[in-house]
Amino acid sequence: MSSNSFGQLFRVTTWGESHGPAIGCVIDGVPPRLPIEEADIQKYLDRRRPGQSRFTTQRQEPDSVRILSGTFEGVTTGTPLSLIIENVDQRSKDYSEIKEKFRPGHADYTYWRKYGIRDYRGGGRSSARETAMRVAAGAVARKVLGDGIVIRGALVQIGDQSIDRSAWDWDEVDRNPFWCPDAAMAKRWEQQLDKVRKSGSSTGAVIEVTVIGVPAGWGAPIYGKLDADIAAALMSVNAVKGVEIGAGFAAAALSGEDNVDEMRIDNGGAVRFLSNAAGGVLGGISTGQDLVARFAVKPTSSILAPRRTVTIDGEETKISTKGRHDPCVGIRAVPVGEAMLACVLADHQMRHRAQCGE
Amino acid sequence: MSSNSFGQLFRVTTWGESHGPAIGCVIDGVPPRLPIEEADIQKYLDRRRPGQSRFTTQRQEPDSVRILSGTFEGVTTGTPLSLIIENVDQRSKDYSEIKEKFRPGHADYTYWRKYGIRDYRGGGRSSARETAMRVAAGAVARKVLGDGIVIRGALVQIGDQSIDRSAWDWDEVDRNPFWCPDAAMAKRWEQQLDKVRKSGSSTGAVIEVTVIGVPAGWGAPIYGKLDADIAAALMSVNAVKGVEIGAGFAAAALSGEDNVDEMRIDNGGAVRFLSNAAGGVLGGISTGQDLVARFAVKPTSSILAPRRTVTIDGEETKISTKGRHDPCVGIRAVPVGEAMLACVLADHQMRHRAQCGE
Amino acid sequence: MSSNSFGQLFRVTTWGESHGPAIGCVIDGVPPRLPIEEADIQKYLDRRRPGQSRFTTQRQEPDSVRILSGTFEGVTTGTPLSLIIENVDQRSKDYSEIKEKFRPGHADYTYWRKYGIRDYRGGGRSSARETAMRVAAGAVARKVLGDGIVIRGALVQIGDQSIDRSAWDWDEVDRNPFWCPDAAMAKRWEQQLDKVRKSGSSTGAVIEVTVIGVPAGWGAPIYGKLDADIAAALMSVNAVKGVEIGAGFAAAALSGEDNVDEMRIDNGGAVRFLSNAAGGVLGGISTGQDLVARFAVKPTSSILAPRRTVTIDGEETKISTKGRHDPCVGIRAVPVGEAMLACVLADHQMRHRAQCGE
Amino acid sequence: MSSNSFGQLFRVTTWGESHGPAIGCVIDGVPPRLPIEEADIQKYLDRRRPGQSRFTTQRQEPDSVRILSGTFEGVTTGTPLSLIIENVDQRSKDYSEIKEKFRPGHADYTYWRKYGIRDYRGGGRSSARETAMRVAAGAVARKVLGDGIVIRGALVQIGDQSIDRSAWDWDEVDRNPFWCPDAAMAKRWEQQLDKVRKSGSSTGAVIEVTVIGVPAGWGAPIYGKLDADIAAALMSVNAVKGVEIGAGFAAAALSGEDNVDEMRIDNGGAVRFLSNAAGGVLGGISTGQDLVARFAVKPTSSILAPRRTVTIDGEETKISTKGRHDPCVGIRAVPVGEAMLACVLADHQMRHRAQCGE
Repeated sequence: MSSNSFGQLFRVTTWGESHGPAIGCVIDGVPPRLPIEEADIQKYLDRRRPGQSRFTTQRQEPDSVRILSGTFEGVTTGTPLSLIIENVDQRSKDYSEIKEKFRPGHADYTYWRKYGIRDYRGGGRSSARETAMRVAAGAVARKVLGDGIVIRGALVQIGDQSIDRSAWDWDEVDRNPFWCPDAAMAKRWEQQLDKVRKSGSSTGAVIEVTVIGVPAGWGAPIYGKLDADIAAALMSVNAVKGVEIGAGFAAAALSGEDNVDEMRIDNGGAVRFLSNAAGGVLGGISTGQDLVARFAVKPTSSILAPRRTVTIDGEETKISTKGRHDPCVGIRAVPVGEAMLACVLADHQMRHRAQCGE
Repeated sequence: MSSNSFGQLFRVTTWGESHGPAIGCVIDGVPPRLPIEEADIQKYLDRRRPGQSRFTTQRQEPDSVRILSGTFEGVTTGTPLSLIIENVDQRSKDYSEIKEKFRPGHADYTYWRKYGIRDYRGGGRSSARETAMRVAAGAVARKVLGDGIVIRGALVQIGDQSIDRSAWDWDEVDRNPFWCPDAAMAKRWEQQLDKVRKSGSSTGAVIEVTVIGVPAGWGAPIYGKLDADIAAALMSVNAVKGVEIGAGFAAAALSGEDNVDEMRIDNGGAVRFLSNAAGGVLGGISTGQDLVARFAVKPTSSILAPRRTVTIDGEETKISTKGRHDPCVGIRAVPVGEAMLACVLADHQMRHRAQCGE
Repeated sequence: MSSNSFGQLFRVTTWGESHGPAIGCVIDGVPPRLPIEEADIQKYLDRRRPGQSRFTTQRQEPDSVRILSGTFEGVTTGTPLSLIIENVDQRSKDYSEIKEKFRPGHADYTYWRKYGIRDYRGGGRSSARETAMRVAAGAVARKVLGDGIVIRGALVQIGDQSIDRSAWDWDEVDRNPFWCPDAAMAKRWEQQLDKVRKSGSSTGAVIEVTVIGVPAGWGAPIYGKLDADIAAALMSVNAVKGVEIGAGFAAAALSGEDNVDEMRIDNGGAVRFLSNAAGGVLGGISTGQDLVARFAVKPTSSILAPRRTVTIDGEETKISTKGRHDPCVGIRAVPVGEAMLACVLADHQMRHRAQCGE
Repeated sequence: MSSNSFGQLFRVTTWGESHGPAIGCVIDGVPPRLPIEEADIQKYLDRRRPGQSRFTTQRQEPDSVRILSGTFEGVTTGTPLSLIIENVDQRSKDYSEIKEKFRPGHADYTYWRKYGIRDYRGGGRSSARETAMRVAAGAVARKVLGDGIVIRGALVQIGDQSIDRSAWDWDEVDRNPFWCPDAAMAKRWEQQLDKVRKSGSSTGAVIEVTVIGVPAGWGAPIYGKLDADIAAALMSVNAVKGVEIGAGFAAAALSGEDNVDEMRIDNGGAVRFLSNAAGGVLGGISTGQDLVARFAVKPTSSILAPRRTVTIDGEETKISTKGRHDPCVGIRAVPVGEAMLACVLADHQMRHRAQCGE
């Protein structure tokens, strides 16, 4: 019942605090004989790594991952992979003030109330630093899924500025610091975020992850639904406040006629759908269409403007965060969202194979 | 790894098909010596029961629940509760046409692709009939939680018509067939839904569930987050396409200043928050504020207008559903949403007690 | 974390008390399209059924099983099977005395201490009646495993009388009321047990279960070992006090030379072993040899001779059990042991397929 | 469903190969604010450490443990503990011969058949080296349990030589290299094992673990039985072939009269038992008596005498192990058995608290 683990058959357990000696994860259930090396994982970690543009925290972490177990001569052995990243740029001094004060909007207060103790250095376990291990696990999950399944995320909204979906260009995503598929909007976000950053404020975002290549039949009724597991996986990411699949909340305003994805037979005799309001899932099971999930990330709670709060001794006070922080944590959530989808799908691939064969 | 179970310590397993002899559930982990009788459960089932207004399906099911195990002389014994409801009004003839055709927007196709077989009678396992057992389990969960925790749901949107939140009146919720807290909007929905119903169409909805009385400290990092479990629980309900907590998707458009819930000390020396954008959860752990979750339900896929679809033999065809169906399944999702929150919270109450004591 | 469930992918949850209206189980994860009818299950229940000889309890239970869900037109659908057996011959009056007294050797006292309440009628949940559902689940598990895997149990010891292993004849097992593979010993046990039965005493037994046809490779390191799961499964059966695999406790007295099962290549090019001290498992993974497990069952605690005990009010007293009981519960444990092996193997078959493919 | 994890609420996940860079574990669910430092864990690791007498393998491993997460300022924070031990004395050259040959009695062949690949260096994941992390986890579990619960193991049989139980002296256990509670027998074992060691052979053993201080009420019906979990935990230890509780296999030969532990009221008004054939567990729940578990360890399979085996290419051959090995692995299994009991009990303590309160 480990609360630091997820997945049933592709099972990831993470550990580590923001300012401890290291963070890491154990991945159990990985199929044997998959070629995997540290570089395969590092590639994805580098995408999430902080300090790559002025729009993310300036903490400098090389995030160099080591594989401590589970591979032999370059391939997986079926035994658990242990991955570790040493923390390098910790600067504990930055956090001395928050020892006594709860940062509002952060987990400081809730950890305190739950455990009666908290590692206040950089948020301890609640730091977004933990998401590095999600990305590492996601890299392994992609190996399990194989090249036929393509998982790509994009930022579709920053603050109140949403992209123009008709301008969607996947190639554009790697050309700007926002993973934005709309080149024009990327330019506008740059200006918008510079303003936010300079003012010491922050802003929220919406990320969309699309998966191509999932065959029909993955997922399971009733509480093992593919979309229920995706919802949990994405909601578990730091700062996420909402998750939707396909048409999502907009489905509430649709008529039955508009919401139904009609079905036809294509030239090859296969079923094709005329639309994808379902986002690739019906009854918790994949339809074979693209899987489409979106999630909302709240603005970073660490801001320059003083906010009213209380101390651990019950005194009223104010707090202002001057440390290194992301003006929009949603940006770095893009590779994290992709990773979570990868892990959920690797898990369901095995779950489906277990019950139904290939 | 049962996909028909949920919860870790308060663990619910459901079974049964829409047109089988019965549906039921097993609830394991219930604390001993709780007074519970069939009437305690029936009360909630009656709220979800179909056929109570013209806005829900006209299937007539008394939904009489029996307790087959786990209680003795009116109190729980700590052993699993087995609950059963016999299916009465099955009318299998209504469903003969769908034996060969996949109803688009339903799980017909995905079950077929996953299992190579499906119980096509009334949707079989994928029928919303299953939610009766969620409501039954929720009634037991409420007993576990005690009277100090109050869970209430309301419909806040039907189609594109959202309530006026300033008119929110909990007393109003029980006075109209929509669980609508806004009396004026309830009137408008009545007209709106009559039109939808008569045209054989359907519409979506948004439900909001609020929980009062959850103490600070329930939930757990990182993958056992209270909001992640709520997201999975609500997304697992039939037809749900989106889940959000607190400000939810709207948080994306907020500034850090507006999103942070500032903290003060009240006259009694306790912490109070000046707002609740967090919806009662920070870092996956309850803050002690009201828990606020919302979820979107898509329009019923069974509609009168013919929709293009395919047969199990790969032929193109059309389908039109004339059977008994809900013009807005979102209405009956209100007690279901409440029940899912109750179950998640009962589970986390025990999980918290296990690790941290009372 | 349900304590009334077992198995990971082939997951069985049982419920019900000895003197409640019914007992039942839910089996989740069953592969689809397996032909299964009530008669397939009834066949095994009839083997365990009480009252078939004078050596088992005279309680008359037809143990008629009904399938309430999970099959359609005679085959499994992939959704959970719900099985139910109504309790018929309950005679609650037999148990009025034990309402106040703890029967020593029974679970009366421990349930009382754990839960502060107990259903004292016939032992409630702790009754061996629960094992009927294990046998039912085992029948389903055998369908999953297919005919290539043959699971057979035998009684190899009653009291201090062990069979002559050189006289082992599987055909003999069905010819005597003890599932004894040694015809001569069956005769001796008959006399021995008649004496025990008439004196109102009881005796223990050892059961051996052998499985033919398990391919090499099932099971998993380290805590998911096939033998570890077998040990838990057998130890969970009522009255079991010991479990061993292969040479078992006798391995302690062996030299390394005698314990090692040497390996050769047979005429067909396959690996064969020259002995089977390992009992078909090495490192928690099956070797392809016969799986051999043994378990010890203590004597029935319900005996005629008065035993010293205490009341729920802390008074010293004595108790003598005159109700219907088994002079040797080990006899009826034979089909139960087989069933547990079947369930564990069905689970591991799927677990293996999930990670490693077929 | 991680096969490298065990426990439900006190959940241990281990990783690492015998000749990889390190081994480690993650312990989730640990209650907060427990004082724990590396020295608390090291103390137990030193008891298991190889090379401490001539009767265990001469591999020299300092087994220095580091805590990488989950504590802050010397106490647990409620987040997962990550423990790591670097492998130092690996001598990979010793194992070159076994690259092509399966060592009979080892897991070489089964890992190969399961995964199609194996890390042959020192047994890889199947090495008894993994048990170091069990001991480390056990040290943490003892902290959870507190000083009121005392867990002690002893070797009660080597080869066919059993101790004289009337000579049992716990103080003696720490005075000889065998954890033997019978001083006279320790002397005889010394001679016996010297002979075994010099001849390059090996021998089996039986270990008994006793736990004092477990309150009545821990454990749970039906599949979460305390003794079922103990059976799985002990059977999962390398080379274990049998597990028993209380009278164990000897219970089969007892009469009901002799097996029943009669109950009285002691002077303080508490229940006391007149014997302990049950070994402290009835119906899967603790009675409050001493918990008594025994397990049998087979002789080390690595022996000097050549044994017939096959190669990975299906050729017949012989193998003789000249590397560093334990003449009796059962010796080092004593602290491992204690650790497993500690982990199971810590888990059940929390499980009991979750459902029933303190």
